[in-house]
Amino acid sequence: MLSSTPRTTLGREKHRGSTDPNDLYEVLDTGLFCHLGVVVDGHPMVVPTGYGRIGETLYLHGSTGARSLRAGGGDEVCVTVTHVDGIVLARSVFNHSVNYRSAIIYGRARLVTDPDERLAALRALTEQLAPGQWDYVRQPTRKELAATAVLALPLDEASVKIRRGAPIDDEEDYALPVWAGVHPLVTTWGEPQADPALPEGIDIPVHILRRE
Amino acid sequence: MLSSTPRTTLGREKHRGSTDPNDLYEVLDTGLFCHLGVVVDGHPMVVPTGYGRIGETLYLHGSTGARSLRAGGGDEVCVTVTHVDGIVLARSVFNHSVNYRSAIIYGRARLVTDPDERLAALRALTEQLAPGQWDYVRQPTRKELAATAVLALPLDEASVKIRRGAPIDDEEDYALPVWAGVHPLVTTWGEPQADPALPEGIDIPVHILRRE
Repeated sequence: MLSSTPRTTLGREKHRGSTDPNDLYEVLDTGLFCHLGVVVDGHPMVVPTGYGRIGETLYLHGSTGARSLRAGGGDEVCVTVTHVDGIVLARSVFNHSVNYRSAIIYGRARLVTDPDERLAALRALTEQLAPGQWDYVRQPTRKELAATAVLALPLDEASVKIRRGAPIDDEEDYALPVWAGVHPLVTTWGEPQADPALPEGIDIPVHILRRE
Repeated sequence: MLSSTPRTTLGREKHRGSTDPNDLYEVLDTGLFCHLGVVVDGHPMVVPTGYGRIGETLYLHGSTGARSLRAGGGDEVCVTVTHVDGIVLARSVFNHSVNYRSAIIYGRARLVTDPDERLAALRALTEQLAPGQWDYVRQPTRKELAATAVLALPLDEASVKIRRGAPIDDEEDYALPVWAGVHPLVTTWGEPQADPALPEGIDIPVHILRRE
């Protein structure tokens, strides 16, 4: 069960909360990027960032020059991953909603210095973005590795919220002659577009072609 | 031209930055939700939230009980909207990237108290989520309005970053026998799903059926 701390205990919409770690892993593992929140000079900064998960640790990366990651090493961060699955069209403005799955993780990010852990983390990060690519393309050089900052965030303090299904309207509104339901938002992979610089005769690899 | 302050001036990847307000408006107007960053007891908190734009003001809303919005009134916030358009598959792990359009807005959020501005803001918020719904469904009651907190954030301090196109590989990697290109991520509207409680004979309205 996920931990319960003041900041992960839902103040509102408790019925949408989940304390099942598998729900947390599902939200994280099906995402492509997160929003990393840090405090810089007292003000909040939220940047979209790549991530990967190994067990109960989330890894984030970026250039060693990125302000958000410089701020993040050793500091409190908040990582949020959100999937929007549909718009919930209710019979009143007030009851409009969104079907979503989101995870919010709080903690102190640790700058990863161990070479093996760094490499494993970068592999997880790359595979999160594009499964199968790590083994398919050129591996990182020592210089490239040195230019990449990797942060580790334990999944100790996390909250998960999920909303699914039809609108919930006020009792008296169900009689209104208004269509209500869910408009699903569907994200799919389009046709892979070859780099114009690609020589002829190189096929799209199966792990890209068949990506789900 | 968008303002240039220390926190909106890109330290890295300057070529991806845009100072054209129209790029900012495009990123905002085509988004469905944002990630709102606030500082709560010294730590960052990032929550997915609805928004709407009227001119040069961004409006956010939520329950009057939501911690993030309580914290946000008068305080420094950061609002980030991100669109991921595709995964950039390079010939090396290091040059993998993402095609995206993102906007980051910094500022002090003002709690909206003027009734007319509140109503206009809620209309903009609803129309952002589901264009055409405001006039189609039941309007908010006084009680519902009272239960909704609305924040206004000026679009004075914003940065926009856009990456498009093929991977940029190291010169020597172009000779590798590796497929490279962009895997587009396509978001579309699925078939509207009627609320099981919907009586027969109520058609899906055109503004939902034809949503792009």
